[in-house]
Formats: sequence, C-alpha cells, structure tokens
Amino acid sequence: MATALIVGAGSGLSASLARKLAERGYTIVLAARDIGKLDALTGETGVLAIACDAAKREDVEALFSQIDAMEGDLDVAIYNPSSRVRGPFVDVDPDEVHKALQITAFGAFLVAQQAARRMLPRNRGTILLTGASAGVKGYPQSASFAMGKFALRGLAQSMARELHPQGVHVGHIVIDGAIRNPGRTEPPDRPDSMLSPDAIAETYMQLIEQDRSAWAWEIELRPWVERF
Amino acid sequence: MATALIVGAGSGLSASLARKLAERGYTIVLAARDIGKLDALTGETGVLAIACDAAKREDVEALFSQIDAMEGDLDVAIYNPSSRVRGPFVDVDPDEVHKALQITAFGAFLVAQQAARRMLPRNRGTILLTGASAGVKGYPQSASFAMGKFALRGLAQSMARELHPQGVHVGHIVIDGAIRNPGRTEPPDRPDSMLSPDAIAETYMQLIEQDRSAWAWEIELRPWVERF
Amino acid sequence: MATALIVGAGSGLSASLARKLAERGYTIVLAARDIGKLDALTGETGVLAIACDAAKREDVEALFSQIDAMEGDLDVAIYNPSSRVRGPFVDVDPDEVHKALQITAFGAFLVAQQAARRMLPRNRGTILLTGASAGVKGYPQSASFAMGKFALRGLAQSMARELHPQGVHVGHIVIDGAIRNPGRTEPPDRPDSMLSPDAIAETYMQLIEQDRSAWAWEIELRPWVERF
Amino acid sequence: MATALIVGAGSGLSASLARKLAERGYTIVLAARDIGKLDALTGETGVLAIACDAAKREDVEALFSQIDAMEGDLDVAIYNPSSRVRGPFVDVDPDEVHKALQITAFGAFLVAQQAARRMLPRNRGTILLTGASAGVKGYPQSASFAMGKFALRGLAQSMARELHPQGVHVGHIVIDGAIRNPGRTEPPDRPDSMLSPDAIAETYMQLIEQDRSAWAWEIELRPWVERF
Repeated sequence: MATALIVGAGSGLSASLARKLAERGYTIVLAARDIGKLDALTGETGVLAIACDAAKREDVEALFSQIDAMEGDLDVAIYNPSSRVRGPFVDVDPDEVHKALQITAFGAFLVAQQAARRMLPRNRGTILLTGASAGVKGYPQSASFAMGKFALRGLAQSMARELHPQGVHVGHIVIDGAIRNPGRTEPPDRPDSMLSPDAIAETYMQLIEQDRSAWAWEIELRPWVERF
Repeated sequence: MATALIVGAGSGLSASLARKLAERGYTIVLAARDIGKLDALTGETGVLAIACDAAKREDVEALFSQIDAMEGDLDVAIYNPSSRVRGPFVDVDPDEVHKALQITAFGAFLVAQQAARRMLPRNRGTILLTGASAGVKGYPQSASFAMGKFALRGLAQSMARELHPQGVHVGHIVIDGAIRNPGRTEPPDRPDSMLSPDAIAETYMQLIEQDRSAWAWEIELRPWVERF
Repeated sequence: MATALIVGAGSGLSASLARKLAERGYTIVLAARDIGKLDALTGETGVLAIACDAAKREDVEALFSQIDAMEGDLDVAIYNPSSRVRGPFVDVDPDEVHKALQITAFGAFLVAQQAARRMLPRNRGTILLTGASAGVKGYPQSASFAMGKFALRGLAQSMARELHPQGVHVGHIVIDGAIRNPGRTEPPDRPDSMLSPDAIAETYMQLIEQDRSAWAWEIELRPWVERF
Repeated sequence: MATALIVGAGSGLSASLARKLAERGYTIVLAARDIGKLDALTGETGVLAIACDAAKREDVEALFSQIDAMEGDLDVAIYNPSSRVRGPFVDVDPDEVHKALQITAFGAFLVAQQAARRMLPRNRGTILLTGASAGVKGYPQSASFAMGKFALRGLAQSMARELHPQGVHVGHIVIDGAIRNPGRTEPPDRPDSMLSPDAIAETYMQLIEQDRSAWAWEIELRPWVERF
C-alpha cells in the first residue's frame, strides 16, 4: 500500500484530495502547522495528521522520518501552502514578504526534495505543487504573492526537466479563481463561478495516473466565467 | 445521442479518439481530405466518414450541413490537421507556407466557427484544437510551422476568453514529441519515449468531461524523456 | 549608402521611422498599397514610395526587384501592416479572417524572406516586425487579430533562432496601446497615454544599432498608464 | 544632480553602468558586500562605495539612510546580485537554496521598496532588476536559480503594473549568456559570443531614458550565436 502526503491540509481542496486518494487505496498523511483544523478530515477518511511548519527544515525532516517509519512507499506528495501580504508596494512589511516567500516557495522546495529522495530510487512517484494565477502574472499590490508563486513555478519547471527522465512526475497546477468552501460560496446567479474542490482534485488524480508517454508538467484551471 | 466530430482523421490519435468517444456513446463523424485512409476506422467503430478539405470554406460548410442532417446535437469538435514545410528560411516556397497556414490555422478557424454556432445556443460543448510545441516555441528552419501553430494557439486563447463564459469549452493541447503509430515506434531501450495515442486521447476525454467550475484551456503533453 | 525598407507606410509610426532612418543616412523605400497617402512623407524626407500589396507574392517580388536596381545594400526592413475583423466569433466573415491572416502574417513572411535573401550573404542587416499585445494574449471577439499577430510572433521567433547566428538581427516589437497620431490624441488629463510614434521609432533605432553581443529579439512597449 | 544606485557592484556590468551613468551626470553609489573589490571602480569614476548585504533588511535601510544624507534625488536604482547552487535536485543543501533566494529575490525586494519610496513622491525614477534566462526557463540541476530568478521576474512584473501608472519605470533585463570580463573572454573563432558589459549597459541607459509613452518593462539580451 502506497502513501500519499498532502502538505497544507485543512482547506476544502485538501479534503477532496484526501478522499479521492483514500478511495484509490493510498494511506494518507496530512501535514499542517495547525492539525487541530484537521479533526474532521482525519475522522472522515482515517488518515494520519502530522504537525509541521513546512518552511522549517527540521520540521520537514521530522515529517519525512515519520513517513519513513510507516509501511508502504511514498508515491504522491502534494504541496498546497501559501502566504501573502497585500497592499501598496512601498507599505508592505519586509518581514511579511520574507515569510510569504518561505511558506509559498521555500517550503515547497523542502518537501519536494525530501519526496524526490524517496521516489527517485524507485523511478516512480508524483509531486504536485499548487500554484496560482499570481505565478504566471504579477499583479499590482501583490509583490509577495508574485514572488512566491513565480518561484514555485520555477521550482516545478526545473524539477520537471530534471526528474521526468528519471521517472518522477512533477506537476504545477495553476488555480485561477476562488475555491468554493463552506465559508465562501458563489452567488446563485453565477453557478460554478468558484472552483469546486472535487473538480480540482479530479485533475490532480488524472495527473497522478497519467501515462508517462504523455505527461503534463503544468495545467491551468479556472471557472468558466473567470476573466483571464 | 450526441455527435463528436474529428477533423484530420487517419492518424493513430484520431483512431484512439474515435474509439474512446464511441465507448462513451457519441456518434462519430470523421472528416479528412482522403477518406480512403479511414476504411479501417469506419469499419472498426461504426463511424461516419466525410471527405472534406478543412482549409476550404465550402467544404467545411458542406460538412456541417451533413452533420445538421444527422440525429443528435454536436457536442464535441476536434481539429487535428497541420501542414508545414521545413528548410532554410530563405529557401522555402511561399506557396507551401501559405498552404501550411491555411491547413494548420485557417481550417481550424472554419471548423471551430461552425462548431461554435451549433454549441452556443445550447451553452454547452467542447472544441479541442491539437497544437504542437512549435506553437509555443518558434524553431529554426520551421517558420511555416511556427506561424501555423502560433496562430492556432492565438485562435484557441481568443475563443476560450470569449466562449467559456457562454458555456462552450475550448481546449488547446500542445503535443510535444512524436506520436507512436504502427509505422513509427520507439527504440526498445527508450520505452514510452513516444506519445501513446491512447494516452493523449485520455487527456482529451478528461477535458471533455471537466467540470465547468475548473476548466483548463491548455495542456502540454510530452513523453517523460522528452527534452524541453 | 544603405537602404531601409518600410512596408505598411502611411501611419505616424512609419513617418517617424523614415525620418530617423533618413537622419542616419539611409535611403528610404516606403511600400504601401495606396501610395497616395504617402505624398506628405515622400515630400518631407526625400524618400521613394512604391505601391505594393504585401500579401501578394508577385507584388513583393516586384518591390524587391526595384530595390535591387537601386544603389546600396538593403540593411533594414520593417514590416508594419496588419488587418483584423472584430465581432462575435460566430459572426465574423471567414473571408475577412483569411484576409487578416494574409496581411498580418503571410505578407510579413514574404517581405522578411526577400529581405533575408539580401542580408544573409553579407551576414548583416536588421528585420523588424511590428507586433501587438494581441500577439501575446488572445482577446475575445478578436480571433483574426490573435491568429495574425500570434503567427507574426512565431515567424519572428523562428527567424531569430535561425538568422541570428548568421548575423541578421530579427526583432519583434509588441505595441501595447494606441499610437498617437494627428487624428487620435490623448485627453489632456491623461498625458502620454498614447504611444508617441517618435518614442516607438527610437526603440526601433536602438534595435538596429544594438551590438551583436547583446541582441534583443523582442521588446514590449506600452504607455506608462496602460493596463496589462 | 541626481543619484544612481547600483547594488551588486564589482562585475564588469556594474563598472560599465557606473561609467555610463557618470557620463550622464549622475552621482554614483555602489553597494556591495565586499567593497574592497570596488577600489578600481571608485578610483576610476569618482563614485561612492558602501558596504551592504542586500539580503539584510537593516543593511539596506542603512544604505538608503546614507543616500538620503547625500545631495540630489535618487533617480536610478539597479539590482544585480544573485546566488545559486548547482547539482542534482536531491543533493543541494537547503541552506544554500535559502541563501540563493534571499540574495537573488528578497534583496531585490528590499532595495526596490526603499528606492520606490523615494521615487514615488516625485512620480519619477527608474528601477532596473537584472534577470537571467533562468527566470523564464527552469533548467535541470538548478532549482535554486530558477526559484530566485523567477521570483525576481514576478517582483518586477508586479511592480511594473503598480508603479508605472505612478510614474516610476520598472525594468527587468533578462541576460541570456555569459558576460565578457577580464577573466572570461570568448574564443577567437566565436567573436562577440559573450555579452559585452558596455552593450548591456547601453540597453539599461535606453530604458532609463525611454519616453513614458512607450515604456518596456522587460527585455531579453543574448549574443547573436547563443542558442535559445
């Protein structure tokens, strides 16, 4: 039985991913800074929750030690966390910008590197990084998010070029729009104007199951009515 | 019962697409300049073959008149044809370049426009355009292919921005690499180094079935060992 | 004395280009479908005007025969023409779309090929293609412009990769915004919100004079207040 | 008399920039971690050298305090530093990756923010960030450089969208290729196959002097023979 790691759990997307992966027989490990938020999830799907600040090297190393102690190989690793600070460029707090870069991009590096170390020897596995439209277009008053998500995309592209020929699939999913969740739903006159977590997760499953003769390294998802 | 149109049939990709769409219950219409090549296909899947030069307005109009006379709505239209001429930029024959533009890009416009006219009133349907890496990177000694495939990508992007909010899904699939077919298979020491037509077709099906809250307008597919 | 060819003359940009090139000592050839519009220009700068439909192979060949008969080598060729048709995708006239592709992209190929034939033997010269934001982003209700300008960009990129190592500089200039001209000026409360033809032409001159150790193949120009 | 700040001084590019800016009458401030390397420069052009680790917030704040104490307004700020670590993705040291992100991207943020604070009130000034091809294409075995330079490009794009309409020009220059310097020159049979620092600096000057009706936010420079 293979293991799937989802970092940055807690959102609706993570729950959908956990459910779909569990249905396919994966053991699920959810990692988040605050695992209290995961109670519903761990109850529902019988998954393991591990507290981890993904921007901290020692936390990530400890997370993977726990995974190593489990039965089964790590076959899937998904990185969701991001952080940002909005506001006029001249006003944002540099410490917040630094934190945003650390969580959005450096944490992804830490997790992806540990995952790749476990996947490369078997020449198999999938690493998926959750991006945003901010990673392909730098918006005003949002420099920290542009920096973090551009960096994440550069990481994904560099990894894809290096790891694909070694059998490890790397995917960068550009989420363009708001994700529907219990606290944030679309107006009745604009149905499906927010991304359904299940619909996003379905694309993640397709990437995980893609034939290696026809791999995608990137896919952009947005609601039908979203402007771009 | 809905209809699926595949233009530029004859290749391994078209056969895979026809088979997968037929399995899902679509009536299949294959259009190609030379329908003699389609005999095997039409026998195998019980599809209709129609001769059509997609770069000719009157041919495309006649094709859609025939589709209109069939039972069922047109729900899927796929455009595959392309043409190119290689060689030093100063040596290529302008008439060949013109022909390449016509087949690769203008024919796609003709077919997509007719398809959209039938889909928009019902606010549903999927139009998929088969691109190439030449559409995102202009290679030397290949100006005609760059022009045609860049134009196709511009068409797809303009259509996606306009038609998505009206319920019609437009997808541009960038095929980066050679497609495996009976006459062209990979060396035994490089397994899966050519794109499997079935694997490509699987991604087309996923685009057709994607939830409208999370549509992709473009996806790039390449073998795991392909350089990019 | 070297020759500079400007195709698609008549606009404010062409006049600025002609003036700046004349100042630098080039003999100027202006080519346009309707050379009546060029009277002011030819009077002002002492240039030669030649009638030419750049989308027609024979017209372009005749144009270059006339250039061949002149003294001096062709060192600069600039292609400006474009054509488009706006409106709902399902309503635009295919014949207009075809014409737009021919003028915007195929004509650029014809002119660039003839220019390259004269430049390559001397391993010098500059070919500049005037693009638009429509060539990097496909806008709704504007499929023909997207197709034409994307194709033009593909042409430029393919040419740059092939011709740069042979000493011929290819540049694609993305004009994003309206160009100021006598009939179209900006509101007084939005100074410099339209591109000054002289400012654009200045960038063309810089590309022409760029050191070959640091060539740009593309540059995007827009007014400071233009959204993008 | 206006001031121009060049961060990451020491290389051939910084010397060329300093010289060209001094010729135009700017007071030059060079900032580098090791200002010992700048002796030749400060002697040659009569500029001020200030020690500064651009990845450290307090260093950058101190640097700008010194600039504030000088006569003249800050009109130009250029950020050059970068850092990277090469090697197999699974082997690179996370601490080195963190350092690379800090120097390449976070330091650029710190400097750009301080510069913008001084330029915005006067609605004028130019901030130029020195990028690399690694910022538009993620190469294998080079994840840290991809992350840093992608982040830098995201920063530049976000800043351009926000600051251009306020009169501050932001430019991102993609250097694709090796820069010629005393210790690294091209083979005699490949003339001009390395970027001349003077040629690069010439493009920086053009960006600084560009008319605001036709600003470029990005330009890619490479030697004529460089593959891309």
